[in-house]
Amino acid sequence: MRKIFRELKSLDEVRRILESLTIDLGVEEIDILEAYNRVLAEDVYAKCDVPPFDRATMDGFAVKAEDTFLAEEDKPIKLKIVGSVKAGVIPSVEVERGCAVEISTGAVMPKGANAVVMVEYTTSKDNYVYIYKPVAPMENVASAGSDAMAGELIVRKGKVLSAREIGLIASAGVDRVKVFRRPRVAIISTGDEIVEVGNPLDGGKIYDVNLYTITSKVRECGCLAFSMGVVGDDYHEIKRTVENALKMCDIVITSGSTSAGLGDVIYRVFEELGDVLVHGIAVKPGKPTVIAKAKNKVLFGLPGYPVSALMIFEVIVAPFLRKLTGLREKRNVVKAVLQVKTYSDVGRREFRPVAVVKTDRFVVYPFTSYSGSVSTLAKADGFIEIPENVAFLEEGEEVDVILFGDYKPSDLVIIGSHCLGVDLLIELSGVDAKVINVGSTGGLLAVKRGEADLSGTHLLDESGVYNVPFIKRLGLKDVILVKGYEREQGFLVAKGNPKGIRSFKDLLREDVVFINRNPGSGTRVLIDMELRELAEKMGVSFEEVVKKIKGYDVEAKTHTAVAVAVLMGKADVGVGIRTVADRYGLDFIPLRPEEFDFVVRKDRLSKDSVRRFIETLRSEEFREAVKRLPGIRVSERTGETLEF
Amino acid sequence: MRKIFRELKSLDEVRRILESLTIDLGVEEIDILEAYNRVLAEDVYAKCDVPPFDRATMDGFAVKAEDTFLAEEDKPIKLKIVGSVKAGVIPSVEVERGCAVEISTGAVMPKGANAVVMVEYTTSKDNYVYIYKPVAPMENVASAGSDAMAGELIVRKGKVLSAREIGLIASAGVDRVKVFRRPRVAIISTGDEIVEVGNPLDGGKIYDVNLYTITSKVRECGCLAFSMGVVGDDYHEIKRTVENALKMCDIVITSGSTSAGLGDVIYRVFEELGDVLVHGIAVKPGKPTVIAKAKNKVLFGLPGYPVSALMIFEVIVAPFLRKLTGLREKRNVVKAVLQVKTYSDVGRREFRPVAVVKTDRFVVYPFTSYSGSVSTLAKADGFIEIPENVAFLEEGEEVDVILFGDYKPSDLVIIGSHCLGVDLLIELSGVDAKVINVGSTGGLLAVKRGEADLSGTHLLDESGVYNVPFIKRLGLKDVILVKGYEREQGFLVAKGNPKGIRSFKDLLREDVVFINRNPGSGTRVLIDMELRELAEKMGVSFEEVVKKIKGYDVEAKTHTAVAVAVLMGKADVGVGIRTVADRYGLDFIPLRPEEFDFVVRKDRLSKDSVRRFIETLRSEEFREAVKRLPGIRVSERTGETLEF
Repeated sequence: MRKIFRELKSLDEVRRILESLTIDLGVEEIDILEAYNRVLAEDVYAKCDVPPFDRATMDGFAVKAEDTFLAEEDKPIKLKIVGSVKAGVIPSVEVERGCAVEISTGAVMPKGANAVVMVEYTTSKDNYVYIYKPVAPMENVASAGSDAMAGELIVRKGKVLSAREIGLIASAGVDRVKVFRRPRVAIISTGDEIVEVGNPLDGGKIYDVNLYTITSKVRECGCLAFSMGVVGDDYHEIKRTVENALKMCDIVITSGSTSAGLGDVIYRVFEELGDVLVHGIAVKPGKPTVIAKAKNKVLFGLPGYPVSALMIFEVIVAPFLRKLTGLREKRNVVKAVLQVKTYSDVGRREFRPVAVVKTDRFVVYPFTSYSGSVSTLAKADGFIEIPENVAFLEEGEEVDVILFGDYKPSDLVIIGSHCLGVDLLIELSGVDAKVINVGSTGGLLAVKRGEADLSGTHLLDESGVYNVPFIKRLGLKDVILVKGYEREQGFLVAKGNPKGIRSFKDLLREDVVFINRNPGSGTRVLIDMELRELAEKMGVSFEEVVKKIKGYDVEAKTHTAVAVAVLMGKADVGVGIRTVADRYGLDFIPLRPEEFDFVVRKDRLSKDSVRRFIETLRSEEFREAVKRLPGIRVSERTGETLEF
Repeated sequence: MRKIFRELKSLDEVRRILESLTIDLGVEEIDILEAYNRVLAEDVYAKCDVPPFDRATMDGFAVKAEDTFLAEEDKPIKLKIVGSVKAGVIPSVEVERGCAVEISTGAVMPKGANAVVMVEYTTSKDNYVYIYKPVAPMENVASAGSDAMAGELIVRKGKVLSAREIGLIASAGVDRVKVFRRPRVAIISTGDEIVEVGNPLDGGKIYDVNLYTITSKVRECGCLAFSMGVVGDDYHEIKRTVENALKMCDIVITSGSTSAGLGDVIYRVFEELGDVLVHGIAVKPGKPTVIAKAKNKVLFGLPGYPVSALMIFEVIVAPFLRKLTGLREKRNVVKAVLQVKTYSDVGRREFRPVAVVKTDRFVVYPFTSYSGSVSTLAKADGFIEIPENVAFLEEGEEVDVILFGDYKPSDLVIIGSHCLGVDLLIELSGVDAKVINVGSTGGLLAVKRGEADLSGTHLLDESGVYNVPFIKRLGLKDVILVKGYEREQGFLVAKGNPKGIRSFKDLLREDVVFINRNPGSGTRVLIDMELRELAEKMGVSFEEVVKKIKGYDVEAKTHTAVAVAVLMGKADVGVGIRTVADRYGLDFIPLRPEEFDFVVRKDRLSKDSVRRFIETLRSEEFREAVKRLPGIRVSERTGETLEF
């Protein structure tokens, strides 16, 4: 049907290809004041002895050590002071037996002296110094060349210059060094729909992202970035721009125009200008990546999707650039425990963004549905690699997390059930929050383990009580429950309610197909509770009632799945929250509201962010603002607390 | 006698003072292309919806989802193709029931369509598309504003901008952002004896180091460095320069001229220009540090010694600068096991440079004699802090090592006894070696633990055999012994050999005082072996011989200590190597040579660096070059190997 990337290469193959690729960058000579973090392209030899002369390392008196050998604390030796030497001058005085010369730290040792007595071990009077402690020859003296000798190799080629090496080079009188030229990298965004930021956005266009992200990344890798702007999806225009880039840069990185659907423009351009080495990689995201070599230069064609482009840069381009610069790989990898079972496609290596939480160990929550959105990526702390032959990773498995930079904890960690009300509370309280959506039970367990400061939860017990029974049942201690808000629950039915559903009794009708929720969900508990009441009213058993409901044994796992089933006509009715009904254009028949509460660890109550979140929940501002969210409302209990 | 720093502050007090110091840097607006690693000084809000319209996330067909609900793999739905939409254009076509529009990834969804069927699940023929899989509403569509809504807060003030945040900001149409101005830092070196590198070095002068090291460090901290050169130890000159620096910079860092011996110039200048907050810190090195505040600016007066200046920068100035910039602290701290008992002065916190070796854990060897030399510092991997109230740290204790940058293993790790021959071998072989001197036994244990690739050793057994018995005794396995070279051992006596010492028999004379070595040292074994032979020859017991030797029970711990005792006249004779006799101007009477060999782990023999080291030992080049080292010579066994 469509062009297939004929030879998808594995990530390992691509890494091997890049491992063997070299570019000769050449060398430049620079002043050592500018040499920080540059890579030395020559062995550096000392131009002079360091220190250049025998040098006093203490303030005191330069003496012949032999004169002091008999000195004792209560029997000082008396020497005649015959002069003084300051740092920076050549002493004219000479030290003979029985004599001493006052000397400053850093000064040249006068002729005849072979040791310095620290001033602390002396007293002076009438041009005589009394010495209370013997010194050995060369004590408190740095002898000429002891640090480095003229002609000695002091720093080797290939060294990344830090302050310490630069200091050593300076001390040896070397003011300019040869370093490797930094790689020059051109960055080009392509796509008819792409507009450079700062320009007006015509209909159908979006702002460019890749030029900005890749430029930042190139700088992070220690290279010089040349941002060449945006060009359309046109073979000739792209070819011209890449040719220009090749004239001035060592590396060219394009993004976009790689997909087969667009005629594989980048592949054709690269093939025209050099040798294509890679055309498609068995990874997710980032499959349509192209890599080519043109003489002493290398071309990367990244996918257009910002998240894909950035992940491929991180995994493939960055290590190559770092190798070129000679700088160290900056990958920050930590071992972490996966808290959610995670599925992946077999056959492609997957890079999955994750949220990281640190307690006494690192734990990770993968972003559940892989999202191509930049805002999602901006929220991620790093990513995990899921190998080609792995269909899923188990909860509790240890994984390697490649962090985006250093791990920085958030002010507030909320793990639990997702709700627009939580987003609103964060917005109003103005805290820097990390929100991880794993459902109510997962959230309570995260609070128990100390990963979360607080959790949003809406679990219903058979007793009809929300949340409280679960705190006890899951063994949470030293927590408080803060009553949150109510969410409207009800029947989701097709627009216009064609089957005329009014109550649970209607589910027993011959012409009505129901869709149930999974056991353990709060909604399922609600459904069964209502059906039990109905059975009681009807004077029959619960089992008898259930047997009559078509679809009772078909279980959807989320509110959304219920809505889609109703929308697709697979079911006539299900139970869910109003927000979902609204989103899918379904009709909504209210039942009883559910109680969405917050469970907070007591040891986190002193945190400013936690206090602000709870204060916001109780505020007039929230009470007002929440009115714009359909199906959510505060109650007279909002903000009440219960201790556990 | 001399000015004492009246109020030495503890490091913790100094940290508290700096914690409370703030400087208002102000804000600048920059292009987001330049924003990498800058710190946001404002909340950034989206200027447009992201995406700005409902957008196809896949290549395929835009449809009404309802039309596809009945599609099955073997019963496709047939829809009429009524047009196509490319990315970047506004579709004029509308999708009605029974119709579909071909659509590219990124294109605007045409009116009437609410989902995209991936091209993979379709076939097309004669203007009709056959759909084999149903889609739910909004499937493969990113709805307008789903990533960010116009007016939404997308990145908060204080955020360090990485590629990911910059991408998010670009996507939302924001091209310029306000960031905190980077701190401007002036660096001034002071001292009459200091010359800027690149200039001729007159007598008594040395090249400046601090201007170069501090400039590098300031850049590493994300600040703008203004290197203002070198000024003499003159109150007025220094004051003028600091005043100029204050006009253009936020921070001024001087080095040198802080010691009481030089009239405390920096303290007086700082006191004149602002308020001195710190005048002397209870740390080692770096005691005479001065810190002052002048209006909205801060002044640091570091000591002149390069190692002291750099350590104080690292421990005190760097955290302050990083706090100012808003960038994260980069301290790289690892837990490591101390391999050598380490003493420290009580009353001052000590920063001790260390060498780090990584096996399955990190271990550290502190630099034994604290050296103020830059070359020593350049060799260190990091430093440890020894608290004020601690006199020593035990071998085996766990310590925190603050690494200088990332830990990078050396090509070759040599731990053992120090010898100039080892230095020569490293120089000739051209390998990047880390040399840690802990003596022969310590070296063999380091080989056993896998910390060292190889060890230099010269241990003598009572049987008269060098090194081999110790490999077995210490339980080393899977190692080889490579025969090294011979070092001349003999009697160290005063110049001219006034007591006419010739043999061990002379030690028994009434007028001769001996200095012994500590038990366990190879030299002690040699001494006792010779005395045992002497006793046998004389027909008396060893004990009888020993009783006659004055000073037999006085034990020096090193060759050097023996030499100093002889030099000071505390003893007439001791046993040591020729190198030491030469260094202290003593006479030397040769006895039997000691065998300096190398023990190498077999699992390291495949390392290029190890191979090159051993090849060098066997080379003609080494045979020639070693002749310049007094008391060291190759033998016919040099380079032979024995397996264990």
